[in-house]
Amino acid sequence: MLETIIENSLINNLTKTFCRSPLQKNILHESDAEIIKLSNDSDECIAITIDTISEEIQTGLYNDPYLIGWMTVMVNLSDLAAVGAKPIGLLISEILPENLSSEFIEKLQKGIADAANVCQTFILGGDTNSGKNIVLTGCALGKSSNNKYLKRTGCKPGDILYSSNKLGGGNAFAISKLLSKHSDGFNYLPFARIKEASIIRNFASCCMDTSDGVISTLDQLMQLNNYGFRFDNNWERALDFEAIKVVKENKIPLWLLFAGQHGEFELLFTIPENVEKEFLSSAKKENWFPIKIGRVIEKPEVQINLYNKTLLLNTQKIRNLPFQCKGDIKLYLKSLLEYDRELNTTKF
Amino acid sequence: MLETIIENSLINNLTKTFCRSPLQKNILHESDAEIIKLSNDSDECIAITIDTISEEIQTGLYNDPYLIGWMTVMVNLSDLAAVGAKPIGLLISEILPENLSSEFIEKLQKGIADAANVCQTFILGGDTNSGKNIVLTGCALGKSSNNKYLKRTGCKPGDILYSSNKLGGGNAFAISKLLSKHSDGFNYLPFARIKEASIIRNFASCCMDTSDGVISTLDQLMQLNNYGFRFDNNWERALDFEAIKVVKENKIPLWLLFAGQHGEFELLFTIPENVEKEFLSSAKKENWFPIKIGRVIEKPEVQINLYNKTLLLNTQKIRNLPFQCKGDIKLYLKSLLEYDRELNTTKF
Repeated sequence: MLETIIENSLINNLTKTFCRSPLQKNILHESDAEIIKLSNDSDECIAITIDTISEEIQTGLYNDPYLIGWMTVMVNLSDLAAVGAKPIGLLISEILPENLSSEFIEKLQKGIADAANVCQTFILGGDTNSGKNIVLTGCALGKSSNNKYLKRTGCKPGDILYSSNKLGGGNAFAISKLLSKHSDGFNYLPFARIKEASIIRNFASCCMDTSDGVISTLDQLMQLNNYGFRFDNNWERALDFEAIKVVKENKIPLWLLFAGQHGEFELLFTIPENVEKEFLSSAKKENWFPIKIGRVIEKPEVQINLYNKTLLLNTQKIRNLPFQCKGDIKLYLKSLLEYDRELNTTKF
Repeated sequence: MLETIIENSLINNLTKTFCRSPLQKNILHESDAEIIKLSNDSDECIAITIDTISEEIQTGLYNDPYLIGWMTVMVNLSDLAAVGAKPIGLLISEILPENLSSEFIEKLQKGIADAANVCQTFILGGDTNSGKNIVLTGCALGKSSNNKYLKRTGCKPGDILYSSNKLGGGNAFAISKLLSKHSDGFNYLPFARIKEASIIRNFASCCMDTSDGVISTLDQLMQLNNYGFRFDNNWERALDFEAIKVVKENKIPLWLLFAGQHGEFELLFTIPENVEKEFLSSAKKENWFPIKIGRVIEKPEVQINLYNKTLLLNTQKIRNLPFQCKGDIKLYLKSLLEYDRELNTTKF
């Protein structure tokens, strides 16, 4: 079933000839970062992940050097958070065209330094190359434990679906940056949920970050667990207030803040009902208020209340759209709006 | 003094705002990979390094997909070897243009898989993006120990300079690929010296890989240690036989096989005289015959016997040339040949 998603099928194809390390705990697709035992007889594990920022720069979505630096660090730390690991540090490889101003480079490096600082971690090393286009690759290293890391699998029907914080900021930023006529700008600077993850990992039955948006995340969790999700009727309260303003100004339906591909880097996770109270009280002690957004359901489908109907979202279609639109942002939005119209006229 | 080298000065500038992790053992420029303690009270360390293959693809030097994959793995494992670490595995991030054939991608992935296999290690995970140009970034993770990792610093005058194997293959490949009229092709497929490093780390006073060629490596070691190197009079025997054929065919002076910027990924290391015998006997047991190429000398300069004179090489000039030629390979060779003529006519 994973193969019906273009991205999963690409990954399966690229990795088919690779041997798996006997010290690797997670299987393919199972976690946001790789979990590696340091030796057979130790409980200590390393969590490690790599992520490149390049498409977002090419499309013009990221043109602020500070944001490019910040995101290179945060997308990787967010993957560590999603497995409940404690960051040790990052390596950064940079391709920088020769015509970049020193001011641009300083802002870029400041974004990297600030993002590492705010997550109380360090830049351990890196590599620089010159090239035609800016490309930044981060690799984050963290400490994990053999038995207590978060996976994408393990949720059960009845478990409660939470988000680490308000949703929709990633897509609101993309709309305001690339598509909006009223470009007021949307302040986008996500934080990896490292601190929150240290609580989540004591309670959650599965966890994944929303790097590709909420629907893509739920689709991946659905495919891996073979269970589905139902959004709560009041799902609008999970949306970021400023993000709502952006979509309303641009006459885009609210729920597309879940559907768009540009993520907000929150954690989506499921909490078994019997530990929910304890989880919430642990969170409250840290002055953190996670947001309940739905439930795990038996049937592998994603249900949402829209246009006064309970609708099933075609999450595969939504998730494959960016690949089919090949970077054409206007076509992508048009296709999402067409799908929304379909849903609106569907009889149920 | 490090600042007189363009590359070092770039790195210093990029990293000046970064805080150093209290768990990081090595200082900036001191080792080929970063050495990170896992906790304050443990002897166990992680070695980690990141390296991007992009310029070599842009210049056309690497256009064989198998070689691109192979090098992405080997350049990183070579950095682990240079600190004497045992590989745990690698992460690979790939930017692949959409028009690549599936045959190209299969060969690329085969190069990655084979290189990992031959070094008895694993691909742990990765990331894929689409983009205009092919870019591959590898990150290698290894095990090291607090007290027994190899550094670029620590050699003393009188120590003997060795290479892990014959030299010049990287530059011979570049000549035959980019500059030669008699393009017979030169078989270039370097191996990270992991096994050899496990012996070297018991004896060497410093170590570095020749990823940027022999002279650049010696220059960096010279600047860090504030000592110099003298090539043995019979330095020609350190050169790869096939590499010699390529330069002779192209009427290029032999010693430029040391000067060119495209490395052969051997290890250069220094052995104190009092442990040389024991070192050589350990190497012989593994059927490995390291090559003696010179000595550490008191004065920070690089001496070589050329044109029946003992000459001092302007290693800074040689090392900064590729940056000054900005990817213009013909200009680069022309500048090297001009410098060779200067040396030939120098009176000493």
